[in-house]
Amino acid sequence: MEAADLLSAILIMNLRILATGGTFDKRYDPTTGVLGFGETHLHEIVARARVAEPVQVEVVMMIDSLDMVDEHRQRVLAACRAAPESALVVVHGTDTMVETARVLADARLPKTIVLTGAMVPYALADSDASFNLGAAVGFARSLSPGVWVAMNGFAHVWSNVRKNRERGVFEQLGD
Amino acid sequence: MEAADLLSAILIMNLRILATGGTFDKRYDPTTGVLGFGETHLHEIVARARVAEPVQVEVVMMIDSLDMVDEHRQRVLAACRAAPESALVVVHGTDTMVETARVLADARLPKTIVLTGAMVPYALADSDASFNLGAAVGFARSLSPGVWVAMNGFAHVWSNVRKNRERGVFEQLGD
Amino acid sequence: MEAADLLSAILIMNLRILATGGTFDKRYDPTTGVLGFGETHLHEIVARARVAEPVQVEVVMMIDSLDMVDEHRQRVLAACRAAPESALVVVHGTDTMVETARVLADARLPKTIVLTGAMVPYALADSDASFNLGAAVGFARSLSPGVWVAMNGFAHVWSNVRKNRERGVFEQLGD
Amino acid sequence: MEAADLLSAILIMNLRILATGGTFDKRYDPTTGVLGFGETHLHEIVARARVAEPVQVEVVMMIDSLDMVDEHRQRVLAACRAAPESALVVVHGTDTMVETARVLADARLPKTIVLTGAMVPYALADSDASFNLGAAVGFARSLSPGVWVAMNGFAHVWSNVRKNRERGVFEQLGD
Repeated sequence: MEAADLLSAILIMNLRILATGGTFDKRYDPTTGVLGFGETHLHEIVARARVAEPVQVEVVMMIDSLDMVDEHRQRVLAACRAAPESALVVVHGTDTMVETARVLADARLPKTIVLTGAMVPYALADSDASFNLGAAVGFARSLSPGVWVAMNGFAHVWSNVRKNRERGVFEQLGD
Repeated sequence: MEAADLLSAILIMNLRILATGGTFDKRYDPTTGVLGFGETHLHEIVARARVAEPVQVEVVMMIDSLDMVDEHRQRVLAACRAAPESALVVVHGTDTMVETARVLADARLPKTIVLTGAMVPYALADSDASFNLGAAVGFARSLSPGVWVAMNGFAHVWSNVRKNRERGVFEQLGD
Repeated sequence: MEAADLLSAILIMNLRILATGGTFDKRYDPTTGVLGFGETHLHEIVARARVAEPVQVEVVMMIDSLDMVDEHRQRVLAACRAAPESALVVVHGTDTMVETARVLADARLPKTIVLTGAMVPYALADSDASFNLGAAVGFARSLSPGVWVAMNGFAHVWSNVRKNRERGVFEQLGD
Repeated sequence: MEAADLLSAILIMNLRILATGGTFDKRYDPTTGVLGFGETHLHEIVARARVAEPVQVEVVMMIDSLDMVDEHRQRVLAACRAAPESALVVVHGTDTMVETARVLADARLPKTIVLTGAMVPYALADSDASFNLGAAVGFARSLSPGVWVAMNGFAHVWSNVRKNRERGVFEQLGD
């Protein structure tokens, strides 16, 4: 048996995607003229991407990550803890993604938790949301247990990354 | 040092994306009224997804995978062999993806090669291409060396998967 | 009362959009990998454009205009004749749009009939379909009775226009 | 010579599209996370729609119509007056479109001026902008001189229409 075959046997099958809101999931409201929150787009994205079963989508909350306080992060943690799957993708606003990652990491759950988001909402014609969700799913199913931040086609250990607001990308600390 | 930190240290940085054509990259020709091949969309997708450097895009060929003969597969293999990166994503038509994977696997290159494609071209409003490319990048940067087929949010060892043409999805052999 | 107010009083309210297929309405079939015909996109486009009532969408046929024979054109004519509205938009393949226009014109119906289509299907991300339909609706509600071909933001009397296949645009005869 | 042929001879050829901003032309800024103003999308839309020459695009200003004061409206009027074309489309925010129309109408220019806009920005995947611009072009080239508001597939004399903010559509006064 080759190494690849062995690894295949342990590739994580069951996947849960947790929506918390963030830029990724903002929706344009024609009445107010602003981007806000309504239904998640995750069901549509999962269907469009033909993601294979088993995959669960769960809406934990739908808010801007700048509005998140510790109580919200505890709810995200509770959802991760309660999830029967060991591969979790958390769709999250980019501004405080690392703060939530810290709360999740402190709990030391035996799961692979990958946080991702978008710089441009899925509802925009030129969004990075679909690619980012795909990458997060790829990382969540193959990285070891722990808490990761997946943006720009790369996964960072949560404690080693920050958002560079000027450049609009995530980068390794020390870069 | 935690396991996740260790793994982070060995996460593959350098990535190359090889275009070979396939449904993923088909382009509508208004003159003929059919979907064919022209420039690859990969540069646009990589820019839109804000994929971090270092990432290389290389066009090996732009053809329908049903038109591939062994000579084409040898060219894909040669490109994989010549690539200085150890994480490779091959964008490929879905119909003969597994045949090309077999040729690549026989060469036993010390690289992680992930083949992906799309059921709906990137040029269509409702395509799965961006998600699939994201997932392939995630898998290519975290799976062990070998040849993988990444479709529908899952990575399969190449020898253990087939395209189910009726359902339009890839599935494990024996499923 | 100003001229504009007078004209407003006679602006045609009731509008019917007749689908016949053509590039405009082609749909990608992931199973076969080609652009063909299924449901019309017109209901979706009308809803997305928030077109005000009263507007009717009627599917007469869904075929490529190169496959149209006289029988098909008679069916389009019959639908135009039967329509209670006096403003009609016919969504049609571009290749034989002028031939159908001739059949409609010979019937000398007391209606404003505007044929339009698209060089790139609505299903493609970069389509001209929405703009063209909008223009056709504008022309249908304000031009005098007769048969018109509306493409590239211009309305031509049917007998004075041809498709320039090389340039992918419609142009006046004699240009 | 038929009536339609006669009218064709007087169909307005030369068209100018004036950008003033509004929801139609809002652009997402990934740095701030809000929809604001940058370059106009009109050149892209005109190219995508393959609008035939002659057509001019002119950026008068790029602002939200709620921020317009009389000085701005005078600038729009000056641009309409200076335009050599007799068919003008003014892309404008929907909230004060009628106020600007009044200013333009008071000048009694011998031109057909059609104001249009969008309920959903062009940059959004589900926008009504392309359809509305198409309709405005159709109306501008075929309606008699005067000032018109074209939304929802219909052209209204400017003095006879209002935006219904709750329903997100324009409607005739008295409806």
